[in-house]
Amino acid sequence: MGQGKVWLVGAGPGDAEWLTLKAARVLAACEVWLIDDLVDKSVLELAGPQTRVVRVGKRGGCKSTPQAFILRLMLRYARQGRSVARVKGGDPFVFGRGGEEWAWLAERGVEVDAVAGVSAGLALGAALGLPLTHRQTARGVALVTAHTTDGTRPNWQALAQSALTLVIYMGMQDIAALQAELQDAGLPEHTPVLVAERVGCAGPRSRAMVLGTLARSVREAGLASPALVVVGEVAALAARLGQAAADRRCA
Amino acid sequence: MGQGKVWLVGAGPGDAEWLTLKAARVLAACEVWLIDDLVDKSVLELAGPQTRVVRVGKRGGCKSTPQAFILRLMLRYARQGRSVARVKGGDPFVFGRGGEEWAWLAERGVEVDAVAGVSAGLALGAALGLPLTHRQTARGVALVTAHTTDGTRPNWQALAQSALTLVIYMGMQDIAALQAELQDAGLPEHTPVLVAERVGCAGPRSRAMVLGTLARSVREAGLASPALVVVGEVAALAARLGQAAADRRCA
Repeated sequence: MGQGKVWLVGAGPGDAEWLTLKAARVLAACEVWLIDDLVDKSVLELAGPQTRVVRVGKRGGCKSTPQAFILRLMLRYARQGRSVARVKGGDPFVFGRGGEEWAWLAERGVEVDAVAGVSAGLALGAALGLPLTHRQTARGVALVTAHTTDGTRPNWQALAQSALTLVIYMGMQDIAALQAELQDAGLPEHTPVLVAERVGCAGPRSRAMVLGTLARSVREAGLASPALVVVGEVAALAARLGQAAADRRCA
Repeated sequence: MGQGKVWLVGAGPGDAEWLTLKAARVLAACEVWLIDDLVDKSVLELAGPQTRVVRVGKRGGCKSTPQAFILRLMLRYARQGRSVARVKGGDPFVFGRGGEEWAWLAERGVEVDAVAGVSAGLALGAALGLPLTHRQTARGVALVTAHTTDGTRPNWQALAQSALTLVIYMGMQDIAALQAELQDAGLPEHTPVLVAERVGCAGPRSRAMVLGTLARSVREAGLASPALVVVGEVAALAARLGQAAADRRCA
């Protein structure tokens, strides 16, 4: 029996077109796929007839496969000598727990490799014509999560002072709290904000707002989780805003 | 004569394998490519016999095609009714001036679209097994440029307090100054730092260091621009460090 291997593969922010050529090649070569629920179904169409596809849910807030079970599953397949692809939305090392999985497997003697993917927070730039960095306006971009299991919050004050564009993941669970925290951190009411759903899919939905009425605007626009919240001057510069019908979604 | 169109296409951080399936499809369909010097030569192999390939240099510090000329060239081809791909390393909206180009072309009535790419700063996570975000350690990641044409510096103090992982682009031109600024911003000498060259190529070179001896370590390791500087606790967690020979490079 040969030596197995686990690939942590970023599938990008939406449909299968966001896979890199490398990710597509690695997926085609792997015998077993452990695929997150948040990965678009069109990616499954790349599976061959021999591919064993195991769906492992990691849907925020819903019933999902425990992480410990996913780890043991990867280990078992790898010890059977199989090549395993752990397919994640976006990039495995940006809010993807790729680091934990790599370390856990490596400690048990399993060879691990990884393929970067396009993180949703960066994909929205091209999707909306929104310059995440912009000379004289934003000399960088911060990807940050509002929600963590331990309940702590980011240092919004420091982030507000950084003058970077903020791309906030998982901010929609409690958008009113996010608005209050950003205002408490010193960002003025008129700070441009953009909220975008499904940036990697056909018909992304997005709307430009201002911080002072963020929660109300989100509610009125009917935008829902998962969505990204972009805060900063560039949020007013999107060349294209999508107000597509709610039924235009990833498969 | 049909209506032309310009696509701003992110080619990712290195060889052609980092193109997304979408980028590859768009490139195959475009009649004219304006391609940055920093884009790896393997991407050129995807050009068909009918593709008109125009290399436009944007190499930092060296002789390069002026931006105004590139803009006029895109406009001219688009007005001839051609489909034009403006091919950039990484992502067009992360330090890629994609926003300026989109706005300039749209003002002149040219249809513009864009394809996101994998930015080098995020690709290094998968390349090195380095978790850019990590529970309890780094709740986000900031992509920031140390060097700007106007000579201003980022608010390093705010960034140091943010507790995000910092991925610094263009920090190698004056690594001693960068070290001093980060220390002045309050980051301690023992802060983990990792410097990585060519993360999207075979044999990326990287080395883990600490902030207090950053400039000396870079010199001793023979690391050179363009390279990325990662600052934060996760910089000590890379599962794989590449010390490949200097001749293993992108084509």
